[in-house]
Amino acid sequence: MNTIIQQLRWRYATQRYDVTKKINETDLEVLKESIRLAPSSYGLQPYKVIVVESAELREQLFHQSYGQAQVTDASHYFVFAVQNTLETPHIDAYIDLVATMRDLDVNQLNGFAKMMKSTTAQLSPAQQFDWNSKQAYIGLGNLLTTAALLHIDATPMEGFNSKAYNELLQLNHHSAVLAVALGYRSSEDAYQFRAKVRKEADVFFETI
Amino acid sequence: MNTIIQQLRWRYATQRYDVTKKINETDLEVLKESIRLAPSSYGLQPYKVIVVESAELREQLFHQSYGQAQVTDASHYFVFAVQNTLETPHIDAYIDLVATMRDLDVNQLNGFAKMMKSTTAQLSPAQQFDWNSKQAYIGLGNLLTTAALLHIDATPMEGFNSKAYNELLQLNHHSAVLAVALGYRSSEDAYQFRAKVRKEADVFFETI
Repeated sequence: MNTIIQQLRWRYATQRYDVTKKINETDLEVLKESIRLAPSSYGLQPYKVIVVESAELREQLFHQSYGQAQVTDASHYFVFAVQNTLETPHIDAYIDLVATMRDLDVNQLNGFAKMMKSTTAQLSPAQQFDWNSKQAYIGLGNLLTTAALLHIDATPMEGFNSKAYNELLQLNHHSAVLAVALGYRSSEDAYQFRAKVRKEADVFFETI
Repeated sequence: MNTIIQQLRWRYATQRYDVTKKINETDLEVLKESIRLAPSSYGLQPYKVIVVESAELREQLFHQSYGQAQVTDASHYFVFAVQNTLETPHIDAYIDLVATMRDLDVNQLNGFAKMMKSTTAQLSPAQQFDWNSKQAYIGLGNLLTTAALLHIDATPMEGFNSKAYNELLQLNHHSAVLAVALGYRSSEDAYQFRAKVRKEADVFFETI
């Protein structure tokens, strides 16, 4: 069987982590880079990733996560913090980045900038946040696939008190949308032995 | 350099495909399976993937895609069709699937079913669709990472006339949210030589 598929079958939303096992620095960089390299609409990357290392902070986040022990027990804990809006200054900053990376004059990107500004101007702040959030989910998909290939366990989480997270992480222009615990499964986690449940291929796919 | 990172750097949103090169059946199955195995909230998988093989239909979709030639020129074209709502019948069908796959009695899953129904009942239809859509973006991330590892090019697309797509694909309870062209880059696609633009790691990550 193909290695990628084998590893995607191997992974599961880990419930109990082996608290003694830590992800090494090399793998950690690969995990992070897989998110940073994820594509996003227009390339805007309207989110950032907070790597929570402070044990004290993880304990506080745990109390806002409906009892999910992965927050404190996993080797690492990432929070995806999404930009609340998508406005002219964000687009201007991005245009500056494109110009720098591609050795262009900003004026050569006027058409691209105008198009993005006209698109985002049609969206309400709630719609901007929603669009931004979706981009973070692409990064999540990249991260989960990469973790599986590295034999690293992961638990994607949407279930936490977002407002409390925002305060604890001192977010102002961003909001916590997703979190991912990463590490190594405990041999005692019974969930690893449960059959993976997915829609059958003939239901999930339609070929026309 | 790590192979995964190397391949994520290799990939880019391909603009011009080599129309003579086709993805083989083995790779196609791996690409599809990488989406089907993607996780989703509660495991509900509130979307399906339409593999558009009909050349005539791809031509019609092209005309609703703002001139993006990838729709017709790439080897394959996938459309992610997201459930418009997330209601009791969806949850009941999922519970049946879990019971079958894990050889359980449906009654053993009453608590899980009740929890999901109570969560989704708090969401407006628009919020349900939005939540469903986000799950499709995880599948997209899995697909794009997998394609890159197989040296297959991909172009994720949000820019198309969704209403026209829904009609052409005869979607009733789903809406077209994302599309992905897949195949092999043309050697003449100038975009492959442009520097990849991503936020610097010290901006994109925050370690606390």
